Amino acid sequence: MNPMRAPGSLTVVGLGPGPDRWLTPEVADVLAQSTDLVGYGPYLDRIPHSFHRRHGSDNRVELSRARLALDLAVAGRKVALVSGGDPGVFAMASALFEALESGDDPAWADVPVRVCPGVSAMLAAAARVGAPLGHDFCVLSLSDNLKPWDLVLKRLRLAAEADFVIALYNPISKARPWQLGAALDTLRTLKDAATPVVLARAVGRHDEDVTITTLGDCDPTTADMRTLVLIGSSQTRLLPRTDGNGDAWVYTPRGYAPAEVA
Amino acid sequence: MNPMRAPGSLTVVGLGPGPDRWLTPEVADVLAQSTDLVGYGPYLDRIPHSFHRRHGSDNRVELSRARLALDLAVAGRKVALVSGGDPGVFAMASALFEALESGDDPAWADVPVRVCPGVSAMLAAAARVGAPLGHDFCVLSLSDNLKPWDLVLKRLRLAAEADFVIALYNPISKARPWQLGAALDTLRTLKDAATPVVLARAVGRHDEDVTITTLGDCDPTTADMRTLVLIGSSQTRLLPRTDGNGDAWVYTPRGYAPAEVA
Repeated sequence: MNPMRAPGSLTVVGLGPGPDRWLTPEVADVLAQSTDLVGYGPYLDRIPHSFHRRHGSDNRVELSRARLALDLAVAGRKVALVSGGDPGVFAMASALFEALESGDDPAWADVPVRVCPGVSAMLAAAARVGAPLGHDFCVLSLSDNLKPWDLVLKRLRLAAEADFVIALYNPISKARPWQLGAALDTLRTLKDAATPVVLARAVGRHDEDVTITTLGDCDPTTADMRTLVLIGSSQTRLLPRTDGNGDAWVYTPRGYAPAEVA
Repeated sequence: MNPMRAPGSLTVVGLGPGPDRWLTPEVADVLAQSTDLVGYGPYLDRIPHSFHRRHGSDNRVELSRARLALDLAVAGRKVALVSGGDPGVFAMASALFEALESGDDPAWADVPVRVCPGVSAMLAAAARVGAPLGHDFCVLSLSDNLKPWDLVLKRLRLAAEADFVIALYNPISKARPWQLGAALDTLRTLKDAATPVVLARAVGRHDEDVTITTLGDCDPTTADMRTLVLIGSSQTRLLPRTDGNGDAWVYTPRGYAPAEVA
């Protein structure tokens, strides 16, 4: 079959944050049926070498990556646009729809598009340490590349007032070295210093590094761009852990009322 | 091997919200290696019949279910404590740690515990309609069984002020018929009536039913306990969809600033 004459398609997939044991069968099927893989280089490197054409790119060119994926699909290719974690959480799905909405090429509108969910980094990090996201929570990117820093601070203040557990994506990078420290400083004025904080780096991978600390003690320089930061609510607590995978479990109870009688 | 003499274990797993294509290989392995399945009956019904002992229960006895799972593990069984979606998001993982913390049986502390993440309902619902969770968001349970309703309203008001996308779990049930309507009424006083709202029921299953509407038009009586509700931020928007799986995509752009130049 000449792929230039076959109908093209574009499927946005998430690999999950770690190893293949978190890759859904749906995404495995999509990868097997794709002709072209488009994504951030290190994510594509996680997919076994095969017959695919690979279009790797740097991690700060999401819109151009989305446009390339659409162009390839218009040309009849079966394209997988690859994110780590879940493609809908600070990943490629939104960039794709931004490109589609721009309508730079009218042919893009006819491309069959599908989004396949994946295990997100926050869910893997939470499971690794227990159940910190077991009650109401919020999820913020600390990147101020695409939103004003004042909005980040406003959201952190309101999240503290709401007593949400807080999950922070993109806490730090070489180009954004101070944002996590500033965020922690703001939260320290609003929340108890003993609030549990988890720095979960590369969960599930060979270089996984998980630190359980407190808001008072948290050292932002120990995080990097692969770290997911979880900050507890007033109810988040520690339990001793004896299985050798850490000193403590971190969990947030299901409620504020007296425990269910059951 | 006599299971009473083998070391027991307890693994908290999430099946994903829908069909087997969202069940991770890790969880499939855990289920295959377990002797006992503990969980809400309809979730256990999704696991193929096998050699497992099944301990199904009603959906409002999470603590007693967690205690049963711990007792079985103490007795040497290899127990999978089963949630739909992800076990850490309004599911069994927090109930398990509440039971562990209660320490009702000192032997529980020696049970090897592990939590395996899954695709959560909000991620599957978001992928089904596009990328509504593509920017900062918050996740609330509307159940006031375990927290005061005033706290729910306070969080909704702060979430609106923060301009988070809002994902609502447990929007409605036979015992809680009015909460979703009251939540929508509160949000209508704070957010634009044209804000996109998604009612995503049983995504990925045979009886899936997805409605895309607006905050002004949303009819809470069309939701049920299997519905995940997504309410946009000020930036969430619709795009025409031509693939026959709905009239529109719903997505939230990655930022507020001018689009990335790439």
